[in-house]
Amino acid sequence: MLLLHLSDVDEASWGARLKEELAPYPVVRRGETYDPADIRYIFVWKPKPEAFDGLTGLKAILSLGAGVDALLKHPKLPRDVPIVRFVDDDLSQRMSDYVVAHVTMHHRLYTRFRADQKARRWSQLYPPAASQTTVGIMGMGVLGQDAAKRLLALGFTLRSWSRTPKQIEGVEGFAGQDTFDAFLSGTDILVNLLPLTPETAGILNYETFGKLRRNVLEGGPVIINAARGGHQREADIVRALGDGTLAAASLDVFETEPLPEQSPLWDLDNCYITPHIAAISSETTGVRYFSRIIREHEAGKPLINVVDRSLGY
Amino acid sequence: MLLLHLSDVDEASWGARLKEELAPYPVVRRGETYDPADIRYIFVWKPKPEAFDGLTGLKAILSLGAGVDALLKHPKLPRDVPIVRFVDDDLSQRMSDYVVAHVTMHHRLYTRFRADQKARRWSQLYPPAASQTTVGIMGMGVLGQDAAKRLLALGFTLRSWSRTPKQIEGVEGFAGQDTFDAFLSGTDILVNLLPLTPETAGILNYETFGKLRRNVLEGGPVIINAARGGHQREADIVRALGDGTLAAASLDVFETEPLPEQSPLWDLDNCYITPHIAAISSETTGVRYFSRIIREHEAGKPLINVVDRSLGY
Repeated sequence: MLLLHLSDVDEASWGARLKEELAPYPVVRRGETYDPADIRYIFVWKPKPEAFDGLTGLKAILSLGAGVDALLKHPKLPRDVPIVRFVDDDLSQRMSDYVVAHVTMHHRLYTRFRADQKARRWSQLYPPAASQTTVGIMGMGVLGQDAAKRLLALGFTLRSWSRTPKQIEGVEGFAGQDTFDAFLSGTDILVNLLPLTPETAGILNYETFGKLRRNVLEGGPVIINAARGGHQREADIVRALGDGTLAAASLDVFETEPLPEQSPLWDLDNCYITPHIAAISSETTGVRYFSRIIREHEAGKPLINVVDRSLGY
Repeated sequence: MLLLHLSDVDEASWGARLKEELAPYPVVRRGETYDPADIRYIFVWKPKPEAFDGLTGLKAILSLGAGVDALLKHPKLPRDVPIVRFVDDDLSQRMSDYVVAHVTMHHRLYTRFRADQKARRWSQLYPPAASQTTVGIMGMGVLGQDAAKRLLALGFTLRSWSRTPKQIEGVEGFAGQDTFDAFLSGTDILVNLLPLTPETAGILNYETFGKLRRNVLEGGPVIINAARGGHQREADIVRALGDGTLAAASLDVFETEPLPEQSPLWDLDNCYITPHIAAISSETTGVRYFSRIIREHEAGKPLINVVDRSLGY
């Protein structure tokens, strides 16, 4: 039996579609009548404190969303039950849409030309070719690799930084803490797609920004954060955008969401705020994905995309 | 002998590099001593009225820049001398950089989110996937094909409109005046890369804008003009941006350049002005390209990329 426990999304709609897709396999929602001991799978998003109570027969926890940092902090998360995270081609596409739009906007010196426009100033400057501009991606999982592939097709020079070495054709790979400074020193546009872990929390800080390359893009380097607000120190971003350490920043995520009305980020012309809309898991692909996970597991096959709790993703 | 006649660019630098590349073939500049009848090739950019006077032995006119609309209006342009235009991979790359940056920015609803930011408003909306968004490219020459290839790699749906039918894999082709309305009716983001001819002058007008598709991108369709100012009716653009017929416009070219200070376009939040910097011919690739043209023609080979004067490009 599958139990749905989805907050802040349309649980009724997910339930109806999963029931249809999995029938005759039973699917229940909170509030319906069932014996907790019969639940083999729980499908969660922002689970409440009591979410896992009494689920003694649980075989797997299915997590909507690619990031599981919040889920791993749940005080009553069962210790020995595997967690399957959502790996979604549609989500990868949408995340790459966001990343490419912001990389190309900054590469074409959007902030400068917008300021010129406001001043009615006609001031010609030719941005460097994409090939002369290096995009450095932090995090080379499914999302990072998809973004890299699309940016390569546009002609950008690519480098990546990840925990373990990754071999991606056309991408210069850096791995581990020892190579972080070398990675930053050749990066013009820094894109964060890391999982949020104790090691990566606060990685987007003033010291990091000061190590980026300054001589390719007019105005200086740029950061783009589409991962988690916990990766960034917003006070450091305000300082760096103000003193020229960064030319611009695109932020889709924030330390507190919604971004509080009094945040100084709202008012900065060189800060590009979107309200955590870079990518959303689509219901259609989600229903298909999780139904397949359950069907194949029930047929005796191993689970895929299982979270490594020691790594945090 | 090659004569240089380049205005508004660094003719001395071009001359030095062409001399070096073509040696021992003679290269001269205006003001130097030479017999006009000895000139077999003239390399021009914005030629003065007397540019072609006395050039009785001319074999070819070499034009810096991909567009020859202004050159074809030169009152003393020799009638029977072939014109070779600049076809430049680097220029194609830079033009595609501009086109992709503006297509993706509008696809991700930049104008809406910037307005939200100014109002300190956190209002989530998920842009459609790239695949749900159709980019319609007018003009399928070298530049249009390069832009189409890169937008396809990003997952956009592509269609094109050109004078003669073009078969490009993954691009739905429309050709000729009869198909123009059908082309527009499925286009969310209209990109103009046409040559400027009597047939295409003023094609970006209010009637055209009203035929674009309105139900995919929130706010309505978008136009991007990276070709020539003569393609657009700026009064119509101001009207369409004001009454919602267009959600936004990115303009790199203008009816009068530099754009006059009193133009109402400067003040429109949904008009994105750049000062004709989408792409520039690079000296390095230009020297290589035109040297090859001359060497091969002197060796008896036919000229390439010759302008069809009856078509205007």
